[in-house]
Parts: sequence; C-alpha cells; structure tokens
Amino acid sequence: MENKDHIHFHLTDALLEKVETLIGNKNDKELQGLLNEFHYADIAEILDDLNLEQAVYIIKLLDSETTADVLMELDEDNREKILKNLSAKEIAEEIEELDTDDAADIIAELPEERQQEVISNIEDEEHKAEIEELLTYQEDTAGALMAKELVKVYETWTVAGCLRRIRGQAQEVTRVHSIYVVDKEDKLIGRLSLKDLITAKSEQKIADIYISNVDYVNVNEDEEHVAKLMQKYDLEAIPVVDDNKTLLGRITIDDIVDVIKEEAEKDYQLAAGISQDVEADDSIFELTKARLPWLVLGLFGGLGSVFIMKDFENVMQTVPNLFFYTPLIAAMAGNVGVQSSAIIVQGLANDNVKGSLFGRLIKEVGLSLINGFVLAILVILFGFLIKQDPTESLAIAVSMMSVIVVAALVGTFVPIILDKRGIDPAIATGPFITTSNDILGIYLFFVIAGLIIGF
Amino acid sequence: MENKDHIHFHLTDALLEKVETLIGNKNDKELQGLLNEFHYADIAEILDDLNLEQAVYIIKLLDSETTADVLMELDEDNREKILKNLSAKEIAEEIEELDTDDAADIIAELPEERQQEVISNIEDEEHKAEIEELLTYQEDTAGALMAKELVKVYETWTVAGCLRRIRGQAQEVTRVHSIYVVDKEDKLIGRLSLKDLITAKSEQKIADIYISNVDYVNVNEDEEHVAKLMQKYDLEAIPVVDDNKTLLGRITIDDIVDVIKEEAEKDYQLAAGISQDVEADDSIFELTKARLPWLVLGLFGGLGSVFIMKDFENVMQTVPNLFFYTPLIAAMAGNVGVQSSAIIVQGLANDNVKGSLFGRLIKEVGLSLINGFVLAILVILFGFLIKQDPTESLAIAVSMMSVIVVAALVGTFVPIILDKRGIDPAIATGPFITTSNDILGIYLFFVIAGLIIGF
Repeated sequence: MENKDHIHFHLTDALLEKVETLIGNKNDKELQGLLNEFHYADIAEILDDLNLEQAVYIIKLLDSETTADVLMELDEDNREKILKNLSAKEIAEEIEELDTDDAADIIAELPEERQQEVISNIEDEEHKAEIEELLTYQEDTAGALMAKELVKVYETWTVAGCLRRIRGQAQEVTRVHSIYVVDKEDKLIGRLSLKDLITAKSEQKIADIYISNVDYVNVNEDEEHVAKLMQKYDLEAIPVVDDNKTLLGRITIDDIVDVIKEEAEKDYQLAAGISQDVEADDSIFELTKARLPWLVLGLFGGLGSVFIMKDFENVMQTVPNLFFYTPLIAAMAGNVGVQSSAIIVQGLANDNVKGSLFGRLIKEVGLSLINGFVLAILVILFGFLIKQDPTESLAIAVSMMSVIVVAALVGTFVPIILDKRGIDPAIATGPFITTSNDILGIYLFFVIAGLIIGF
Repeated sequence: MENKDHIHFHLTDALLEKVETLIGNKNDKELQGLLNEFHYADIAEILDDLNLEQAVYIIKLLDSETTADVLMELDEDNREKILKNLSAKEIAEEIEELDTDDAADIIAELPEERQQEVISNIEDEEHKAEIEELLTYQEDTAGALMAKELVKVYETWTVAGCLRRIRGQAQEVTRVHSIYVVDKEDKLIGRLSLKDLITAKSEQKIADIYISNVDYVNVNEDEEHVAKLMQKYDLEAIPVVDDNKTLLGRITIDDIVDVIKEEAEKDYQLAAGISQDVEADDSIFELTKARLPWLVLGLFGGLGSVFIMKDFENVMQTVPNLFFYTPLIAAMAGNVGVQSSAIIVQGLANDNVKGSLFGRLIKEVGLSLINGFVLAILVILFGFLIKQDPTESLAIAVSMMSVIVVAALVGTFVPIILDKRGIDPAIATGPFITTSNDILGIYLFFVIAGLIIGF
C-alpha cells in the first residue's frame, strides 16, 4: 500500500540512515514494510543515494513489479550498475512487468551479449515478440519511442461488444488515451474516445460512430518531429503506422516530455561547451571526457591569437594600450557571437526563423551597429576618464564596433548554414563560435585600429 | 471539415500567396472553404506569416470556436496585435469557447483597462466567475496553471448515476484523464478512472470502488515544482486543492510541457547572455533590450582587465609574451567557468547535485587539475615550437592551470550559493561567470607568472 501523501515525499538523511541500518541488520521484514509505504519513484530516489551493494540488496527484496518500476526511474548510470548485478533471468522477470517501450529501452541499454540472453528468458511469447520488434527500429525514430500496448477495435464490432473486449485489452494499458479503429487488415481508419463509447448506444456499430479524422505518424519518423507535431496539435497520444498504414503502436505525451527535456539539455550543454550528456554526479573521468575537447579547441583559438599578436609586436612600443584591450575585444566577439547563435538555434528549433537571408543580414547588421555604437561611446568615455590619447580611444571604439558586427554575422550565419546542410546547428554555439570569433576579432581589431592610428 | 492529413501540413509560399490573393479579392467564400480544410494550429501558422491587416481579416471571417483555438496557437506578439484590433465583445465571444485556463491566460495578456471590459462581456455567468477566480492566483503557481474543467463525482453516487451525470460534465472537458471523487463538502477524497467505471457494476456505490490514494497539489504551489512532481510520478493530470483540500481545478500534462519548455528556453537564453524572452523574429528594439545589458556587463569586465594590465605595463619591456596570452587566459577562464556552472545549474534543476560541499570542492579541483594539466602540456609544447623562453612557457602554463582551477571553483560555487539563497542559479551562467572569471583570471595570471619569472 503506497503512502497517501507520497507526493509530499522528501528524502531526509534520517530516512536514508534508517534504510542503511535495516540493510546492515538484514532486517528484511521491517525494510519491506518501510519500502511498501513509498512510491516507486521515491524508492528510486532512495536507491540513487545508496551504494551499489545496498541498492542491489533492496532490488532483490522487492517484488518484480515494483523492481521494474523502480528500475525505470533510476539514474541511467545506477541502473546499468545494478543490472550488472542481476541475472538474465531476474532481469527478464522484471521486464515482463514493464510496458513494451520501457522493456525495450532497458534491454537496449544492456551490453549486446546479454540482450539475447535476457530476451530468451522472457516467458510471455507475445510480450517477447513485441519487444523484439521494438528493438529493430532505429534509435530516435517513432518506432523506438512507441509502445505496443494500445486499445484497438474493429469497425465491424458493436458498442456493446467493444466495451466487453476493451475491458480485456485495457487491463494491459496503463492509460486509455484513445481507442484506435482498424479495418479487417489492421489498417488504421479512425479513432474513438472512451467518452464517445460511453455516450453511444450499445447496439450501434463502431463503423457508424468512429471519427475518421485521425492523426498518425510513420514508424520511421524522427522523434523530434513527432514531439513537435504532438505539441503543435495538442495531442496526448498518437498512433504509429507503417507504410501500409497498418497500426503498429502508439506514442504518449509522457514519452514526448522526455524527448523535449533531452533535446533542451543537449542544446544547453553544447552551448556551455560540454560535448556529451553528463551530470554533476558523474565520475571525474566522464566529466573530463565531456569537457576537455572543447577546452582544447579553445586553447588552439587562444594560441592562434598569440600568433596574431606576435605579428603586431612592433606596435607594442608605440601603442601599448591596444594590447590591454585584447581580452575585452575577445570577450565582446565571443559574447555577441554566442547571443546571435543562441537566438538562431532556438529559432530554428521552434521553426520561427523566417524571411530571406538578406533580410536577416540587414537586421543583424542594424542590431549589432546599435549595440556596438552604445558600447563604443562607453569605451570613448572610459578613454577620457583614464586620459587616454583620443585617437587611440577612437581607434579602439571603431575597431570594436567592426568586431561586434562581424561577430554577430558569424554567430547568425554559421548555424543557419549548418542547418541548411542538415547538421545540428546547436554545435555552432558556445566554444565553437567564441573561439573562431576570438581569433577573427583580435585580427580585425589590430588591422582596423592600425588603419585609424596609422601603423 | 478538417483535412484528414493535416499532420503532414507544410506551409508553402504558393499557399500563402493563394490566401493573400483571396484576401485581396475579398473572396470570402473561397477563403472560408480553403481555411476549413486546415487544423487551427495550421491556420495560426498561416496567420503568423501574414501582415496584421490580413490576419485580422481572417480572424473576423472564422467562427468564434475556430478563432479561439487559432488565437491560442498564435505567436504571443501577433496575438497581442490582433487582440488590439478586436472589440471587447468579439474577444469575449471567443473566450466563451476556450477552456478556463486558456481564457484566463488570454485575458491576463490584455492591458489592464481592457481586462474588465472583456470579462463583463462574457455571457455565461459560471464561465465568467471561473475565469475571474483563475485571474486571482499568483503567476507561476498551480492556481494560475490549472483549469476549472474537470469531472467530479460524489462518493454517495452509484456507478449508473455517475455514468449518466458524467456524460453531462464530460461534454465540457476535452479529455477525461481522471474522475475526482469528493465528499459532500467538495473535499477531494479519491479518484477513479473511466476504465474503473466501465468495469464496475452499475448498482455499485462510488464510495465502494474509488481509489483513496490520490495525488494532489496545493493551489499556491510553484508551477515548476508541480512540473517536477508530474514528471517524477508519471502523472498525466493532477487535481489542485486549497488548504482545506477543497477541489478547485486540475492541471494536465500538456500545460506542464509548456512550463518545461519555457524553463529550458529561459535557462538557455541566460547562459547565452540574453536577458529576456526574445525570438529571432522580434524587433531590433526588443532584441537590443535583451542583449545590450549583458554586453555592457561584459564591457565593464573588459575595462577591468584594461586596468589590471595597465598595472603590469612595466613588464611589457621584459616579458611581452605574457600580453599575447591574455585573450587565451580570458577564454580559458570563461569556458571553464561556463562548463562548471552549466553542469551545476542543470544538476540543481534535476535535483541531482548531492553530497557535501567539501566533496564537491575536492572533485572540482581534481577535475580542473586534470584538464589544466593536459592544457598546460600543450602550452609548453607550443612554446617549444615557437622557440619561446622555457621559463616563460612554464610560467604561462602553471599560471593558466591556476586560473583554470579558480575558474572551475567560481563556476561551481556561485550557482550553488545563489541557489541556497533562493536566487535562480541560471543567472550565474554565461556572461556573468565569463566576465568575473576574465578579470579574476587575468589578475591571477600576471601575479602567478610574476612569481615564477620574478617581476
């Protein structure tokens, strides 16, 4: 029996200690009693905070239905470790309890040599065949996201017959979003809601009451596209069909929530210069692997600037001030570039980058001229304050403006070009833009300042 | 009649031109026929690409139910402009067609002086009262997010009576997620699913079949917390209650999708140095307002570096190389800071920043020492290649390592401290961290290099 107030669950140190003590004392009965009070999502939260040995101890203590749900909620790294400590038979038992989409996800995470072993241990032949089917679909497609569980009725059935049979099907389906209507060849021809069914007369034929206007996606459709469609059309579930419109499965909005979150986190990490999905609590090794490549890229950019500045070494005697402004120039080029690229990347993701490239060029130049002008005035004022030579201040201000305009254009057009070539524009944000803009910016800065001051 | 294949809708220039021509010719009949083929979300997409006059023309042509749905799907800026061109009575008519939560959202967007005018034009007294109630809840709370539409049954009803009455209530509710069971004082005591109701015998009492284990949130709960709960516990809808547990409304997962997306976009924009919600197609003025403040902050940071480097002007004669490396140092300090802060901000958002502050300190120092060491080796190799004085190379490499360690610590602990003080840690990413790390980094660089080289 779950605790009625589980939604206000808060994992305290005291609770964690109590669990650890019960495990230490092997007090299985009391431990089971305690865990039974919690929602599986809360048990997963507890497990994420225990060490592996303790977590496995608890997993083996729970019934396989709860274990299955807990496994789905665990942090991916912890799940992987725990599954290593379970036999193929144990994993198969838990997988029997899961919906096909979750079951396939867990099996896909296993090392390849174990996958077949686990699958062969699944007793329910239908469940096994469905999971095997789901595993054949390409990652990030509708097929990989969908579940086989759905409520399907034939157009020839009556409302009464339908209700009777739905009771059977619905047992397997956690939530009945829609009832899909198919013809005798299992082709999707329409939909019904439970509400429609309840309000219909029991002797009516499904063929007479179903709604033929039904949304669907192809099994090979990209998952991000499915997410966009479900959001745009406010769908809570969508059926998935093959090229012959045969009904294969359905995708529900909670799967889409995960797709949206993953996508947002990926873009955020790319913008911050983190090249793979990591979390604050991952190992130092994992975190280094995700962070170091971008830092090396940034280092090469910085070394490029060293080369450029060495070229202008002779100016050091006459205009040393220029060198003091190089971090500022690099920072401005980087910041402007990141701003421009972030707006474009987000716009591309939301399909609201419209109009001609030329129009966008004019707009970005206008925008960066306004920003650059305000910043240039501030630089000139600063020059007055520190009694800098006015020509030098002007040279610095004007060349900074040019750097800002160029940085904005690079930040705008690099992601647009990447997107047109079918490359994820999000990789153009963050370190990539800052690094290239740093080098370009410092070079431009010295060249334009040189033209004004005359060296 | 909507087009059956609307989900594969793609807005073409040809279609847009056709619509514009029909508007130009005031060919209302053909225009209506054309628009009737499209889903309201697609009509909104068309409207977003027309000019204001054309968009208003179409809005006035559509029936109020379609208009209401189209309005909800429009880009916020366009909606505001279109609503300015409609009378209070016209807006009220469309609002009658919307669910209470959407209706309240639209009214909340209107200028204050128009809000009352529109409300007084709503004819359905119950709808009006419900919308007025929703408008009283604080922004970003469960109350502001919930809808009043829900299916509610009393524990004293029988299954048969329940089904009969649900047919009435369900007409108003787009999707029946759950049926909420209340006592005679309207206090939430449990839930039922339509599935449960269908499988129950018609003479049974609700009191005997309902599930008392029901999740709920308080009307004043923060919307982000509600989003986290619904994700954690895989809920598709959650009832909202007041302090007495009186049932007030319900929140559905599609509202939560919007909350998650908004939050992710806000964090992304903050990390990229964009201070308010803007889109690629906003006006230059809006975009400048969002971008300039962060650039000014970055400028002040850069001017700070100018001051610091001026202080070390005398070193220019002896070790000019140091000055060539300042953009590299600033970039490293910035990149490392952004990486560290992004991981923490994301970890805090997902509640997976665990363990003691001291443990995190040790980890971050270890991580940055590893990254710093690899980068330092590269800097020394580069020094060999360009035949730089080895002591200088060593000084640059070691001081860069120190800068990286400090930048990582600042990036890690600033968001943690902000979060502990109840400030959104996301503001600490992006320009804020880069700017402070630039100044700190360049200062540290000269001080530590000075200690090694001896100046």
